[in-house]
Amino acid sequence: MGITLYELAGAEEDRRFSPYCWRIVMALRHKGLDFEGVAWRFTDKDAIAFAGTDKVPVLVDGAAAIHDSPAIAEYLEKTYPDRPSLFGGKEAEALSRFYVDWTDLVLQGALFRLVVADIPPLLAPIDADYFRRTREARVGTTLEEFCAGRDAKLDALRQALAPLRRTLTQQPYLCGSQPGWADYTVFGAFQWARCVSPIKLLAEDDPIYRWRDLMLDLFDGLARKAKGFAV
Amino acid sequence: MGITLYELAGAEEDRRFSPYCWRIVMALRHKGLDFEGVAWRFTDKDAIAFAGTDKVPVLVDGAAAIHDSPAIAEYLEKTYPDRPSLFGGKEAEALSRFYVDWTDLVLQGALFRLVVADIPPLLAPIDADYFRRTREARVGTTLEEFCAGRDAKLDALRQALAPLRRTLTQQPYLCGSQPGWADYTVFGAFQWARCVSPIKLLAEDDPIYRWRDLMLDLFDGLARKAKGFAV
Repeated sequence: MGITLYELAGAEEDRRFSPYCWRIVMALRHKGLDFEGVAWRFTDKDAIAFAGTDKVPVLVDGAAAIHDSPAIAEYLEKTYPDRPSLFGGKEAEALSRFYVDWTDLVLQGALFRLVVADIPPLLAPIDADYFRRTREARVGTTLEEFCAGRDAKLDALRQALAPLRRTLTQQPYLCGSQPGWADYTVFGAFQWARCVSPIKLLAEDDPIYRWRDLMLDLFDGLARKAKGFAV
Repeated sequence: MGITLYELAGAEEDRRFSPYCWRIVMALRHKGLDFEGVAWRFTDKDAIAFAGTDKVPVLVDGAAAIHDSPAIAEYLEKTYPDRPSLFGGKEAEALSRFYVDWTDLVLQGALFRLVVADIPPLLAPIDADYFRRTREARVGTTLEEFCAGRDAKLDALRQALAPLRRTLTQQPYLCGSQPGWADYTVFGAFQWARCVSPIKLLAEDDPIYRWRDLMLDLFDGLARKAKGFAV
């Protein structure tokens, strides 16, 4: 009885673009755990209702059904303690929390303003309507209007990345010499953008670019091979 | 032969307001290490030249003279391994790095815009001239102009604090159930503001306010008793 992961997909089954799902895909590979990734769409609320949520990722492992990416990471760490640690101890687990909150509130916010208008054409038609309606209600304008002025938004992103950039001049990964949950969390945001948008976010001499390259190479180039744009 | 810490002071010897020095004061107490704090002023470059720097904190411990707060923290952890750990392991030490960079580049930047004009009146006259001249050259205007429009700058600060706020709704300290280097780093910035400015930065129902209160209580209320403003 294996592990199943419900993952957000576009019109094409293999365009798996959720930043939250990417965190878990990388975490599962980190632990060396095989899983079946099941394509899920925004409007498939019924398909995951059994897990008590309407959002992916949802991880099913035997009798356990867990949602919310930090809760899934915690579950994997507790359930598979003999596999490589995702965190590196309880202090490191606690310190990882701010990376999740910074990614959710700062990094993904800055990326959303750059890439959200690129998403609807990649979705199944029923999802595209749902996505546009809910996101436009949230931002109070059309997605195209919201994403106008890309140069200024790109400057704002690169400015928001300043602390991450400085950290990555000092060590190869956020977790030190090896990647871990904090890296997967931040990387999930960049991989989301890569899966949905041709926009070039990072200059090639940016230390973050070099770190992202290392992340794209992990697990036999898993994230690099995923359907997206080679930016 | 004890430990000596050169600490930035105002006109009053006991107004010790450097955020970087506060990190180390808290770290020394965390390790249970006694030290002599020596008042130092911006223009006392000669007094610390022996350590190869012109900035405090400078920590002298026997033959060792170390500057730069993260380097001092690393030194204390290595030199006093039997004392309570500042980090909680090598993964946690690596994960702490981003807190330093976020504090230096985001948090202290937002605070600087709010409090910097409050600093010169608190300095010894020779330091006040030096401080105003160097900082006004950096910001390209008078400190008073630079700090104008406090309400908007306070909004910007509270917005920049969003990820920290969310983290602190989930655990008492950034390091988890007990404070550590990441807490001392972020706290140093708030303590700097508290030592130099009467401005009320945080609402009392802000989870960050509650965390700061816990930090002010540590080590018999060491930071709360320091010369500053009860805000």
